[in-house]
Amino acid sequence: MLSFRVEANSGGARAGTLTTAHGDVQTPAFQAVATQASVKSLSAEDVASSGARLVIMNTYHLWLRPGPELVAERGGLHEFSRWPHSITTDSGGFQAFSLAARTRVDEDGFEFASHLDGRRLRLSPEEAMRVQGLLGSDIAMQLDVCPPGGSARPQLVEAVERTTRWAERCLAARSPKQALFGIVQGGTDVELRLEHIEALAKLPFDGLALGGFSVGEPIPAMYATLAQVAPRLPEGRPRYLMGVGTPQDLVYAIGVGVDMFDCVMPTRNARNGQAFVPWGKVVIKNARYRDDPSPLDPDCQCPACKGGYSRSYLRHLYMAREILAHRLLTQHNLWFYQSLMKGARRAVLEGCFPAWSAGVLQALGAGAPEPA
Amino acid sequence: MLSFRVEANSGGARAGTLTTAHGDVQTPAFQAVATQASVKSLSAEDVASSGARLVIMNTYHLWLRPGPELVAERGGLHEFSRWPHSITTDSGGFQAFSLAARTRVDEDGFEFASHLDGRRLRLSPEEAMRVQGLLGSDIAMQLDVCPPGGSARPQLVEAVERTTRWAERCLAARSPKQALFGIVQGGTDVELRLEHIEALAKLPFDGLALGGFSVGEPIPAMYATLAQVAPRLPEGRPRYLMGVGTPQDLVYAIGVGVDMFDCVMPTRNARNGQAFVPWGKVVIKNARYRDDPSPLDPDCQCPACKGGYSRSYLRHLYMAREILAHRLLTQHNLWFYQSLMKGARRAVLEGCFPAWSAGVLQALGAGAPEPA
Repeated sequence: MLSFRVEANSGGARAGTLTTAHGDVQTPAFQAVATQASVKSLSAEDVASSGARLVIMNTYHLWLRPGPELVAERGGLHEFSRWPHSITTDSGGFQAFSLAARTRVDEDGFEFASHLDGRRLRLSPEEAMRVQGLLGSDIAMQLDVCPPGGSARPQLVEAVERTTRWAERCLAARSPKQALFGIVQGGTDVELRLEHIEALAKLPFDGLALGGFSVGEPIPAMYATLAQVAPRLPEGRPRYLMGVGTPQDLVYAIGVGVDMFDCVMPTRNARNGQAFVPWGKVVIKNARYRDDPSPLDPDCQCPACKGGYSRSYLRHLYMAREILAHRLLTQHNLWFYQSLMKGARRAVLEGCFPAWSAGVLQALGAGAPEPA
Repeated sequence: MLSFRVEANSGGARAGTLTTAHGDVQTPAFQAVATQASVKSLSAEDVASSGARLVIMNTYHLWLRPGPELVAERGGLHEFSRWPHSITTDSGGFQAFSLAARTRVDEDGFEFASHLDGRRLRLSPEEAMRVQGLLGSDIAMQLDVCPPGGSARPQLVEAVERTTRWAERCLAARSPKQALFGIVQGGTDVELRLEHIEALAKLPFDGLALGGFSVGEPIPAMYATLAQVAPRLPEGRPRYLMGVGTPQDLVYAIGVGVDMFDCVMPTRNARNGQAFVPWGKVVIKNARYRDDPSPLDPDCQCPACKGGYSRSYLRHLYMAREILAHRLLTQHNLWFYQSLMKGARRAVLEGCFPAWSAGVLQALGAGAPEPA
């Protein structure tokens, strides 16, 4: 259901192509988050025009509302949401833990109360597979246990071991129509991470993800762990770093061999008035933009910048709580993330990723910090 | 700054073309409301693609935020909001009365407290002209006094007389770069309305508007008054019915000779989950749409319907409070209003407006009412 081909290496970075039943996805790839089967404020056409060919949707949210049976009746997520390209779904475990109330976890899975209406639900590895099968995504994720950053070693060990047992149960229960990725845990404990990679690499997963990053650990600890762990993921399968991150994080992680990402940052920050630019950020509410006639980034090709929407007008829309502010800033940020992926890919193909990434990272740190 | 040509009549209805410095507007014309220089949830491109060539923006809101001086510095509303077609601004008087707090009105204008920060402001006829001149709209509206529906005759008389005096002051203070419309008041008192038309028709306004409708009076009273008043507006100038209304209201008013409209209904109702269709309304939250695979209206050419977004998905987006629900429903409703205008125009040009309007009105009443 999925093929993956690495086309070039440069430094530790890779450029490849991931192929699903819904087409090709060039890597490195950033997946915009369409939590409830919609990238907030954007139409499917908007998302595709940013260059994105893969988005991630949230099993937990769609399970509660509108329900996987309804989505299946409507032809699955692609038909339901009118997104014709590839879709990943997460397992729902992370939200069951972070969003739901009164969550208990045992060997059989999570039991929790819906954050919408309080009804108690159980999410087992088999249920996570059943729900994702009904949703009809191209790439499903195994149910995993994701301990918070800074957890003690015994908790990390327990999470890793249970995640491995759930990996086998997910593989046994998977839909034959979906690719399935395993998830490596182990926090910032390199030894545990490597053991877990070894265990999961033996299983017939279509790709492996690194979970349990960006969950509260210090950024230098994340970087140090990634540097030792990511290159040890199987070379022939896609490597997916879940829930990360800033533009800097992405450039760093690509440099140690990661192929895929997802993060709410470009979309959520847009709704909070923060635009990503090559020299850092533009915090649009700041008074300095009040009468600024420039677009967010004069070199950007997004609909907001190319459409000639000035910082002055965007600030007005944001201060006046106009929905269009969310949309234009979201488009800009998605374009920025996609451009970053395209730039990284080009650099790998041209064999100059280390120089490219050094330049990008330097530029990102060059802007004067703004009050957020 | 404005020319207007009536091209055909059918029954009491007219089809014409209004020409401003920003292009032609075919009439009958519906102006979408871009209160804060944005039709809520839509980009300028979205609005234009509905066929709209004229929108109305709100002087009161833009006066308070971001301020007319800023808009003027940024090249006026067209450049600021990236709307390249024609723009009307209202006078700000209606909002000063309805939105602001502690409003007093005297011969010199309104004094009121901003609903944003409480600062006291004065809106005189001269200030209304100065602010609209800075905003740079194509069509400015005179400051008028708009009494609530059901006001007693002495209040209506006072409103009419003061509005006439303000009309002269607005004409004296107008920007030479803008068209200026006078506003007829008089409630549902036909005699007063006709006197006011006579007084304002003598003045060098570029068009005349009917204000003070849809302000709480019974709909049959509005219709009866319109039938006697609208045809008496000067034939050679555009006739604008302000703040009205439902699709039925528009079809009725076109039939008695009105050329222009504005109303928040298509955009506001969209955000409340209500879609206009030729057989009435679709209230998208209703459970009957939960698994309905049809678009809102199979014959509609709007991005929501043509894009294949099902009622089921739209209902999901609306229930999940996704911004995309607002946008798709707003696009649909604007398309519906523009189609209604195009249909009316075509019927006038073909000389069959009475038959067309009878058919449309019958269809609009044909659907089973839904719980709102």
